[in-house]
Amino acid sequence: MLILGIDPGTARIGVGLIEYKNKKAAIKCYDCLTTSTSDTTAQRLNDLHQQLTKFIKKHKPNIVAVEELFFFKNLTTAIKVSQARGVILLAAEQQKLKLYEYTPLQVKQALTGYGRAEKNQIQQMVKLILNLKEIPKPDDAADALAIAICCAHSLKI
Amino acid sequence: MLILGIDPGTARIGVGLIEYKNKKAAIKCYDCLTTSTSDTTAQRLNDLHQQLTKFIKKHKPNIVAVEELFFFKNLTTAIKVSQARGVILLAAEQQKLKLYEYTPLQVKQALTGYGRAEKNQIQQMVKLILNLKEIPKPDDAADALAIAICCAHSLKI
Repeated sequence: MLILGIDPGTARIGVGLIEYKNKKAAIKCYDCLTTSTSDTTAQRLNDLHQQLTKFIKKHKPNIVAVEELFFFKNLTTAIKVSQARGVILLAAEQQKLKLYEYTPLQVKQALTGYGRAEKNQIQQMVKLILNLKEIPKPDDAADALAIAICCAHSLKI
Repeated sequence: MLILGIDPGTARIGVGLIEYKNKKAAIKCYDCLTTSTSDTTAQRLNDLHQQLTKFIKKHKPNIVAVEELFFFKNLTTAIKVSQARGVILLAAEQQKLKLYEYTPLQVKQALTGYGRAEKNQIQQMVKLILNLKEIPKPDDAADALAIAICCAHSLKI
């Protein structure tokens, strides 16, 4: 089973694909989709939709796992990231993927057993669980893989 | 010139089309797109995207005017409406429409000259400006027409 984890954002959207087989998670690929700050919001959403749809069509995941948003430092960021998240959910639904959503707390607990784990601890666990030589870069890609692992973990249970 | 005003939402999305010619605004049509509360969020966003794309292709507006979100009673509503708004901006961009955005304050000022006007005052002005027999129903449709009128007004200036 192929699980695609997505870390929503406007300028940088992390995507991480893992294979979950025999109760083990293995890395397939990861990337960070980017949109141009010189484009309008609508153009960037269109760009994100095209890139993500292309990625899904190419890699054919069975499941998509997206981080659930529920805390923001300011409302402007909340609105921007939510707009991008709406487009991400749409792209997943259009490709008929099964969708799961996890809060940052759930992701942290799934990977480290501790809801207040630091970013670096999560990244170390991603490296360890997926048997990687280094922590995946950029952070957005590592976060996306963490969400995919959290999904695999919750399906196991 | 055909201007499509859109009042973003999750369950109810107001759309109002006006023609702006010789510095006068005339009604073309209005509607309230709805999505089912029994569907998942992703299904509802897909449904909204399909309905709105169909509406745009049928009526061929030149411009789309969407309300800008910047105040919410709670973050959950902000996230939900923003996700729908992201899909609305995407649909407009995919159909290559020129996009304008207005805050509720701008809409109120454009229609009544007063930024703190009541909802009913706005609706009365929509009726008056578009020479209608009654206030358009539901409220979402009247709001969408108000946004379209605000856009026409700002283009005039």
